[in-house]
Amino acid sequence: MQEIILKENERIEEIQFAKLKLIQNPKGFCYGIDAVLLAKFCKAKNGYRAVDLGTGSGIIPLLLCHSAKFCEIIGIEIQNEVADMAKRSVRLNQLEDVIRILNIDLKDSCNYLEMNAFDMVLSNPPYMAKDEGLQNLGNIKAVSRHEIKTSLEDVISSAKALLKPHGHFYMVHRPHRLVDILCICRKHRLEPKEIQFVHPKKNKKPNILLLHCTKYGKAELKFREPLYVYEDSGAYTKEILDIYGK
Amino acid sequence: MQEIILKENERIEEIQFAKLKLIQNPKGFCYGIDAVLLAKFCKAKNGYRAVDLGTGSGIIPLLLCHSAKFCEIIGIEIQNEVADMAKRSVRLNQLEDVIRILNIDLKDSCNYLEMNAFDMVLSNPPYMAKDEGLQNLGNIKAVSRHEIKTSLEDVISSAKALLKPHGHFYMVHRPHRLVDILCICRKHRLEPKEIQFVHPKKNKKPNILLLHCTKYGKAELKFREPLYVYEDSGAYTKEILDIYGK
Repeated sequence: MQEIILKENERIEEIQFAKLKLIQNPKGFCYGIDAVLLAKFCKAKNGYRAVDLGTGSGIIPLLLCHSAKFCEIIGIEIQNEVADMAKRSVRLNQLEDVIRILNIDLKDSCNYLEMNAFDMVLSNPPYMAKDEGLQNLGNIKAVSRHEIKTSLEDVISSAKALLKPHGHFYMVHRPHRLVDILCICRKHRLEPKEIQFVHPKKNKKPNILLLHCTKYGKAELKFREPLYVYEDSGAYTKEILDIYGK
Repeated sequence: MQEIILKENERIEEIQFAKLKLIQNPKGFCYGIDAVLLAKFCKAKNGYRAVDLGTGSGIIPLLLCHSAKFCEIIGIEIQNEVADMAKRSVRLNQLEDVIRILNIDLKDSCNYLEMNAFDMVLSNPPYMAKDEGLQNLGNIKAVSRHEIKTSLEDVISSAKALLKPHGHFYMVHRPHRLVDILCICRKHRLEPKEIQFVHPKKNKKPNILLLHCTKYGKAELKFREPLYVYEDSGAYTKEILDIYGK
């Protein structure tokens, strides 16, 4: 096995349920439940070619390899240090044959990748509009959280360009952006087909939105049953424990 | 008190929690929980001028009179027999000073009512697209359920025309039309501000959507806590019993 170099502040985290090892930098933006929920929400199939727009630590491509035998998965990440970390995580898991990390701006994806060619595009993009809340524009966490280097429309239009006709787009986002998300998806002919809301508890407002669109799909939206993260007691719900394989 | 004539098949139903009497025709389309939820979802204020687009039996204007002292409430209903029934219900409750029922097509509202003048427009419109499921085009129930005489866009554009700037639009609809609803509202500058989903039970998909928009509002969507109609036991939830004043 190759030697994997860990840089300052980095550590290796074992993701038991997917039998994966992931390099994380706790001073940067660490993956959260959102990425795990998105990987579980999407329908992965053997032989698929997929792209993850804004892959961060590479968690989504790594989790996808756990659920099907993909032909290839491209993870696109604009931040140099973060892309480098994702590449090392791919090597650590010996998945270089399937996963390729590209350190490019997702707006340029079509200059590097084949258009109208992928079965599936996923994204866990920055959630907050550029002007939402305080931010330090140069900071790695800020770029992962705010639409500084990329906008919702960049993500959606890139996904559209990369997907085959009838290909699948899966995104995790925040419910307060729902109107923008649905209107921009429809504008780019990624028709919303399935929505699932995730609530912290059953009597709380949803705080995570999972969306499935198909390119050139007909208008026919379905809802999945809501997902609750915690019981009233504070324990994880059975659904969440199932997702984490516990 | 005036004599109120009941026609064939009609009966008077007492709505205990609002101390109202409503004429209903069980062979036509009877009001359901949706109208009650919409009346409860909206924020009624004393002195408001309101319009209910597609008022049916007049249930929404009648319920609104229970929650605030409106200056006036106009109920618009295209079907002659239904509008006539609503007028008689208004008289039965001696609310002719506040509620006026107009037997017109809502697309013509601006020929009969002042534009840019109302504080609140509500609608519990037909839910199903013209081609969704079987229908008898001439039937009273079909007109109440399907977009035969009116479309979602007619309702939304009429609401926009009637409302004052920053006026409130409240609609109850089905979740599977969410994309159409949000895109058409935004197109007509009725910006979605609040959404509440109603689920039959806590682990079921939502089957009712409550929406609040403001005319020319800024993009800032909030969710209300979800509403569940039944407990797992089949009993009504506390929230629903509260709405029905039980």
